[in-house]
Amino acid sequence: MPINSDADIEVTAFDWVPEPAQGLVKDLRVRWALEEARFDYRVRLIGLERPPGYAGEQPFQQVPCFRDGQVQIFETGAILQYLGEKSEALLPREPRAKYRAIQWTYAALSSIEPFVQFRALLNNFWAAHAWAEPSKPTFDQLAQLRLGQLSDRLGDSEWLDGDRFTIADIMMVTVLRIATRAGLIGDRPNLHAYVQRGEARPPFGQALDDQLTTFRKHEPQGEAA
Amino acid sequence: MPINSDADIEVTAFDWVPEPAQGLVKDLRVRWALEEARFDYRVRLIGLERPPGYAGEQPFQQVPCFRDGQVQIFETGAILQYLGEKSEALLPREPRAKYRAIQWTYAALSSIEPFVQFRALLNNFWAAHAWAEPSKPTFDQLAQLRLGQLSDRLGDSEWLDGDRFTIADIMMVTVLRIATRAGLIGDRPNLHAYVQRGEARPPFGQALDDQLTTFRKHEPQGEAA
Repeated sequence: MPINSDADIEVTAFDWVPEPAQGLVKDLRVRWALEEARFDYRVRLIGLERPPGYAGEQPFQQVPCFRDGQVQIFETGAILQYLGEKSEALLPREPRAKYRAIQWTYAALSSIEPFVQFRALLNNFWAAHAWAEPSKPTFDQLAQLRLGQLSDRLGDSEWLDGDRFTIADIMMVTVLRIATRAGLIGDRPNLHAYVQRGEARPPFGQALDDQLTTFRKHEPQGEAA
Repeated sequence: MPINSDADIEVTAFDWVPEPAQGLVKDLRVRWALEEARFDYRVRLIGLERPPGYAGEQPFQQVPCFRDGQVQIFETGAILQYLGEKSEALLPREPRAKYRAIQWTYAALSSIEPFVQFRALLNNFWAAHAWAEPSKPTFDQLAQLRLGQLSDRLGDSEWLDGDRFTIADIMMVTVLRIATRAGLIGDRPNLHAYVQRGEARPPFGQALDDQLTTFRKHEPQGEAA
């Protein structure tokens, strides 16, 4: 269990978020990578009311921010790449394989996540808008097109690059979990199985448990079960 | 002028696209980086009706695909990083500066582009939908939040990392050109000036000219001026 208050690596996380976001907050991606590589890290918790000056660290006011000694990084894709350069368990050294992993990390964030995320917002945060329901077919078509293309490419492979697990799988599985929760994966058994393979890895389980344990500890009074 | 039919580097591009997409197609990002680094490249043109088997190269059926000898990459972020590792003109070697550039490359694609792109679609491809107009305030708010945060962070800097131009600026300027064309930048003089600084670089001018010249040559009959 790499959480260690003396670690050089620091990751910011929220102390609590509402239930629909629990298990999806983006520090999970970084925690998972840290667990896979067995790098110790400490967590700096912040509230949804961001602390003064947080925009100086993260211009979009999100989590996580990452720090390793003098290196400071935001954007989970860049953080995973940094960790990949520190650990071959996360990113191959051979240039062709390395760039396949980097390309799929970008693909998860740029070619899949936006289409899945906007469609998911119509189910929850935007559901009360009168335009939400009539706009669903357009957003559905986009999300389903991309998920179908991903499913076609993945085929029966274990991971995006065959039997080699990389940062690209950490990014893609965590992006697909947004789709899973919003019921968007549909009849694509290979994508369901791919997400389940990712979630079955002990480092994922540890990372998720650590995020959720924090939320349980900081449950707002009056909302506790 | 690095277009050279004998070059090792190959980039795919469309032979023609409709006017609203001209100057925004993503091979522009890669052409610009190649011009900045003075790397020769050849162009493989494809039609909007993708050639058979193109999904084997690019699972989302987009341009560009990139090839440099045995290395094959899709996703413009990954391609720019690959070129950055080949040329210090594009990406610093010092680790902290390198990861600042990589983080901003991801930020352009993940934290800015989707919000700008979806808002822009409401002005053109989605304009005829009855839900388009009533959904604009929500999408406007998101796009303006992110553009405002970017403007605050950029301040009076020449580039995203002070006076050092990197792949992050190639990505951010080309993303902001989507916002400029859709009239979304608004009253943010520093963002307008930043885009203009990027567009004023001769390598950008050459790259744009090469993309547009191809489209003029392949203008469908009956639509020529």
